[in-house]
Amino acid sequence: MDVAQYMRELGQKAKRAAAVLAKTDTQQKNAALDAIAEHMQARRDAIMAANQLDLDAGRDNGLDDAMLDRLALTPARFDGMIEGLLQVASLPDPVGEITDMAYRPSGIQLGKMRVPLGVIGIVYESRPNVTIDAASLCLKSGNATILRGGSESIHSNRAIAEAISAGLAAAGLPSEAVQVVETTDRAAVGELITMNGTVDVVVPRGGKGLIERISKDATVNVIKHLDGICHVYIDATADLAKAHAVAVNAKTHRYGTCNTMETLLVDAPVAEAALPDLVKAYSEHGVELRGCERTRALCDGVLAASEEDWSTEYLAPILSIKVVDGIDNAIDHINHYGSHHTDAIITESVTLARRFLREVDSSSVMVNASTRFADGFEYGLGAEIGISTDKIHVRGPVGLEGLTSQKYVVFGDGHIRQ
Amino acid sequence: MDVAQYMRELGQKAKRAAAVLAKTDTQQKNAALDAIAEHMQARRDAIMAANQLDLDAGRDNGLDDAMLDRLALTPARFDGMIEGLLQVASLPDPVGEITDMAYRPSGIQLGKMRVPLGVIGIVYESRPNVTIDAASLCLKSGNATILRGGSESIHSNRAIAEAISAGLAAAGLPSEAVQVVETTDRAAVGELITMNGTVDVVVPRGGKGLIERISKDATVNVIKHLDGICHVYIDATADLAKAHAVAVNAKTHRYGTCNTMETLLVDAPVAEAALPDLVKAYSEHGVELRGCERTRALCDGVLAASEEDWSTEYLAPILSIKVVDGIDNAIDHINHYGSHHTDAIITESVTLARRFLREVDSSSVMVNASTRFADGFEYGLGAEIGISTDKIHVRGPVGLEGLTSQKYVVFGDGHIRQ
Repeated sequence: MDVAQYMRELGQKAKRAAAVLAKTDTQQKNAALDAIAEHMQARRDAIMAANQLDLDAGRDNGLDDAMLDRLALTPARFDGMIEGLLQVASLPDPVGEITDMAYRPSGIQLGKMRVPLGVIGIVYESRPNVTIDAASLCLKSGNATILRGGSESIHSNRAIAEAISAGLAAAGLPSEAVQVVETTDRAAVGELITMNGTVDVVVPRGGKGLIERISKDATVNVIKHLDGICHVYIDATADLAKAHAVAVNAKTHRYGTCNTMETLLVDAPVAEAALPDLVKAYSEHGVELRGCERTRALCDGVLAASEEDWSTEYLAPILSIKVVDGIDNAIDHINHYGSHHTDAIITESVTLARRFLREVDSSSVMVNASTRFADGFEYGLGAEIGISTDKIHVRGPVGLEGLTSQKYVVFGDGHIRQ
Repeated sequence: MDVAQYMRELGQKAKRAAAVLAKTDTQQKNAALDAIAEHMQARRDAIMAANQLDLDAGRDNGLDDAMLDRLALTPARFDGMIEGLLQVASLPDPVGEITDMAYRPSGIQLGKMRVPLGVIGIVYESRPNVTIDAASLCLKSGNATILRGGSESIHSNRAIAEAISAGLAAAGLPSEAVQVVETTDRAAVGELITMNGTVDVVVPRGGKGLIERISKDATVNVIKHLDGICHVYIDATADLAKAHAVAVNAKTHRYGTCNTMETLLVDAPVAEAALPDLVKAYSEHGVELRGCERTRALCDGVLAASEEDWSTEYLAPILSIKVVDGIDNAIDHINHYGSHHTDAIITESVTLARRFLREVDSSSVMVNASTRFADGFEYGLGAEIGISTDKIHVRGPVGLEGLTSQKYVVFGDGHIRQ
């Protein structure tokens, strides 16, 4: 098989489908999402059987338990995919929205219209449910999608792709609107991320290794997030009850998510008042603590943090703690060691809150709220295709709007430029 | 000289300066712009003398007249630079603007704050005035700039850079906020466009060759426009007086600009009524016409257009003309042969106007208005760093807002995620 040729053909089909999707109305896109949900439901047994093939092969190939867990389509995850489709159907359609319409001094009337990006490539690992999540968001936002899942989930993805195709056909849309790369050849990814002029943006979904590789080699645009090294900074003016609640929630609500706090910063004047209770709470949750010398002097049971700890995303019940001297020290630490994802200050000072919001260079900055709020559902985007820690095009949780662009629309009445 | 090392150092200095600029208030940024204007005025003779060195060297090196013209700082161009600085100072500061602030069901208050991108690299040819245009827009939007002009304008750029440095210092800002690459070694460009993690975006300004090279090799984000192959489509329902005025203006107002019409499409039912008068008007302006067979059957003095003509940006008094059959035919032609820059329909039909606006995939789409309106000044952006024909991050004329991003800001009162 000539992989380059195969991918080029996939790309050309996607481009043609994108032209159709760009002018498809909301009703027809929603009908397709509903029909895909129906076909998923009707093929539940076949898809689960295909998933079992992947799981068996994975076990034979020595995949570890975490990988196998991500690969498995449980009944609950299957229901989640169906629910996701219906939820995306219920979201407002961003395409065609015209904003900022106003007359210019020349007499022309100028506004902006929201439009799809075109062709979106998704590269992901293991989780077969990404196939449905990504396809539904791209479809609703009027984009054609090329999906490249991991080779370990190829049977599941093919079975899901058949349901998607059937749903698209039922709604009268081209089946090339959502295409699954049929080959497991790794060269296909290399092609996909360099198809400038065909693929408008690539979204990698998976571990840091995958995302780094793709960012490094891609010449098309990439929407990505690498790390979530999130901080909570407890300022000297903080209400310590709020500080306690937020700092515990930001770490212990879930350990494996990118918006989980990995480093707690505490202003020196309140370290003695705040830290012992927090250390006790974390210990009760079974969180391993690694602190600076000043932290360790105040609390028992805290290991010594190394320099590396300050730039580590644990994704685990581990927390690093540092006592800092004031907001400048805290902001410097966050901008230097953090990942520009989500950081919060706990303070009663409006002056310090304003400084923190402006000066911390992260996709979400918060005052007196848990970093765990940084996601598409909590932000009202309905669903998210990822959280961008880049500044170009889109920052923070990326929903339907992040998969669109805006073009200028101009009305005149025979207006010419003088 | 170790160019890679030199560029890395330049990048690190720019990053530090960007952190300062991000928190600099509007008044201080405007003071810097005013001070740069003063220092430019005070060094007028020195800068003009430096420009003369470049012109002499250019002549010795056999630069053609067009190149030498772009290189020359005439008194009017010098005044234009000063005026540009003062104009950018007078524009509203986009940085820090908070929009869409609203309460979410969880009780958190969520909004978006506009922030600088960080470090912007500008790669340009010949025109020394780009040094001031780009520096002023980047400075006002809170970004640090690394400027890499052509080797042919190195003396002019260094002299202008001194005025910029002096102005920045006078306003108490770090001189590294605007840096000019001091080496003419081409490897410096290769470094600049691959400094991921340091350079946030590169804007190439110049000919198509330069922009293609940079887009191909860049791994950092690029804001660019390649071609302006703009169309005017005269629909069968058009008011022919408006059609005539717009079609003449779109071609003859200026020939060398990217928003100039390069191809005129005329719906068959009105071709006979519209074309002969237009051909006469173009001929009076000295415009060379290249038409399809149907155009040539209706009008004398029209050369035969080749397939290549439909995808050529003439930037000259040359126009291609094609008779088409209805709006589908016109839209297909534009999306296939055009450059997604600016396209206009002349029609009295609201139905066809709506279809054209939605289905033509260009950064500006217009109804009954000249394509020449597509620029930053006419759109009220005040000034532009370029016109983007990409869909990612920014489309169409790029002003101060296109040099910024938005981060999420969240206010709570000790809110935790349930």
